[in-house]
Amino acid sequence: ALPQYLVRWVPIAGIAGILAGAASALLIWSLNQATRIRESHLWLIALLPLAGLVEGLLYLYIGRDVSGGNNLIFEQIQQPTRRLQFRMTPLILLTTFMTHLFGGSAGREGTALQTGASLADQLTRPFRLDERGRRILLMAGLSAGFGSVFGAPLAGAVFGMEVLAIGSVSYDAILPCFVASLIGNITTSALTEHEAAFRVGYVPYLNVRTLVLAAIAGAIFGAVGLAFSWIAHQIELFFKNHVRYVPMRPFFGGVLVALAAAAIHSTRYLGLGARPIVEAFALRVSPWDWLGKLLFTALTLGAGFKGGEVTPLFFVGATLGNALSRFIALPMPLLAAMGFVGVFAGAANTPIASTLLAMELFGAEAGSFAAIACIFSYLFSGHSGIYRTQRVQVNKY
Amino acid sequence: ALPQYLVRWVPIAGIAGILAGAASALLIWSLNQATRIRESHLWLIALLPLAGLVEGLLYLYIGRDVSGGNNLIFEQIQQPTRRLQFRMTPLILLTTFMTHLFGGSAGREGTALQTGASLADQLTRPFRLDERGRRILLMAGLSAGFGSVFGAPLAGAVFGMEVLAIGSVSYDAILPCFVASLIGNITTSALTEHEAAFRVGYVPYLNVRTLVLAAIAGAIFGAVGLAFSWIAHQIELFFKNHVRYVPMRPFFGGVLVALAAAAIHSTRYLGLGARPIVEAFALRVSPWDWLGKLLFTALTLGAGFKGGEVTPLFFVGATLGNALSRFIALPMPLLAAMGFVGVFAGAANTPIASTLLAMELFGAEAGSFAAIACIFSYLFSGHSGIYRTQRVQVNKY
Repeated sequence: ALPQYLVRWVPIAGIAGILAGAASALLIWSLNQATRIRESHLWLIALLPLAGLVEGLLYLYIGRDVSGGNNLIFEQIQQPTRRLQFRMTPLILLTTFMTHLFGGSAGREGTALQTGASLADQLTRPFRLDERGRRILLMAGLSAGFGSVFGAPLAGAVFGMEVLAIGSVSYDAILPCFVASLIGNITTSALTEHEAAFRVGYVPYLNVRTLVLAAIAGAIFGAVGLAFSWIAHQIELFFKNHVRYVPMRPFFGGVLVALAAAAIHSTRYLGLGARPIVEAFALRVSPWDWLGKLLFTALTLGAGFKGGEVTPLFFVGATLGNALSRFIALPMPLLAAMGFVGVFAGAANTPIASTLLAMELFGAEAGSFAAIACIFSYLFSGHSGIYRTQRVQVNKY
Repeated sequence: ALPQYLVRWVPIAGIAGILAGAASALLIWSLNQATRIRESHLWLIALLPLAGLVEGLLYLYIGRDVSGGNNLIFEQIQQPTRRLQFRMTPLILLTTFMTHLFGGSAGREGTALQTGASLADQLTRPFRLDERGRRILLMAGLSAGFGSVFGAPLAGAVFGMEVLAIGSVSYDAILPCFVASLIGNITTSALTEHEAAFRVGYVPYLNVRTLVLAAIAGAIFGAVGLAFSWIAHQIELFFKNHVRYVPMRPFFGGVLVALAAAAIHSTRYLGLGARPIVEAFALRVSPWDWLGKLLFTALTLGAGFKGGEVTPLFFVGATLGNALSRFIALPMPLLAAMGFVGVFAGAANTPIASTLLAMELFGAEAGSFAAIACIFSYLFSGHSGIYRTQRVQVNKY
């Protein structure tokens, strides 16, 4: 009944939110430190191969059971077998810090999802949750991780509900997902400095012409999201086939990433890439920025470095939108915003969460354009994506 | 495949959007006329019983097959049997106009859903849609009707996907729903004057205290949404049991509504109630306004008058939120906004569409508070609502 349901789930989701939010705050703080240190000590990038080796060794000797990462979490939600170990949290925080300190190109959402879900799962036993309860708890952990690390609680809540399966959403976790994501966001906000907001500025009237333009942009975002998933997967298969000893894969990947950065004389595509994302809303960036970030990230993550995909996808999308403003007659900042959420929507197959993300980050005015970009990207990105254990529940077309 | 899918569905959804949007524009215009005429000729209210009789006779003799209204549409989506007749559109437009001209308390979304869906269904034969295609088309028609009449295309799109079943959403109609709703909104915007925006003003920080306050408000909104559905249903049963001849039910209902308005010496609870809704965001309204509107609307619709439930629910929610600001330490305009979407979210069982509605009408800043109100209202409103053929797909708790 409802009273028991609330007495049970509001505290559990609240605690899961606090845990996830605190972990996200630690993650944000540590990545800020990593970025600051790396940018003033560029020789650290030469050590990226060693960092990759250490990450590989850590997961081989201490973290074998949690090396599945997000895909492991999705599997546990779809078919629960055993609890996510607590060590998932310190391991992913430490290795993500290393990836960023030494210049790998990666994000932070994968990390936030893993800390959110593995910390949440520690509540399964004390609260004596059954299989269905545990499933709901893990979804709430995903919501809280996503919502807190990006400062977008509504997008986070819907993300946790939307990401598990392509084409359908069930509301049985709606309360825990929203409570955990909102509490997670409150926690992270209290512990970190406010991040800079993005400005989209002028949003034109939606009419048939601008709608068609937005749909074309969305289709391109979806194709690029698909390309990212595919290339990262091919790189992963290449390393699997050619490097037998698992920890050597990120070692060689690190060699390639460091050499590539040296070859282009630029650190622009290393790390999170927060600054180029902000630039994409304000100035004309290189028309190939999106491709550079896509390849650096696919190489970093495909080789086995730890970290997330989503902030790089924001980078790819925002700079791609920026570049498309040369051909598509929509304002550049609006196209950057549409790309920011659009490429992600296609690669993660989460169109509604991505639309909410746009409204929370860029304001409700951008909502209709963002929604078109996200829906068309979702359609054009195929039936798989960055989360390989995501199920296809309902075909897209 | 995707190209065929797009070539098929973008035009169909676009045409459905244009048809629904044009009908919504006609509806908005006609209700503005009805309201203006009634307010300067209050004696028209004395004719409300006759108007009810005429509406009843119209549906008995011409509209028997379409008298199911929204519930008939939902049934046709869940289990298609035969096409919605075109006559649903002129009949519901005419009878809704009559309800408003003579002072019944009703809304317009029920009308917009019926025109959107019945006009869309006229495309089933020319485009040779199969059962599944027709289902998608009708959902797009609902989306376009809702999105266009309320000027909230994203809420409309998600409403069409969310309203059919409680507890789950399938994305198989996501493209047609968004395209139809956006095109519907463009069409209505082009044909009508811009309606006044609501101002929520200051939104406090979300913290644990304000979150709990918002949740309490949401629970109250849900209980009131439930009460509305229940009372309207009881009134309907009462008339069914005591008045055998169907057209006499709205006649007697009209007598009661007109007498009640005379008894309280006020026309405040008649018609759409657009002005009191705006007042609820700006000044202290009577703490019983919400109950007055609830009872007038339940009586009007329960007796069989035609029109929608949603604008009255916005009225009930906004004035209830306004009243709650005496006890709940949140800003009055924010509580009015939360109630506006919250009572509706519970009564229609559409929490995500309602959250998007809040963001589109009140701005993204109000989003988190609106979401909490909508989720808690959804939980507290029970497993039925204003749409009686809505299915329970996943239990709420």
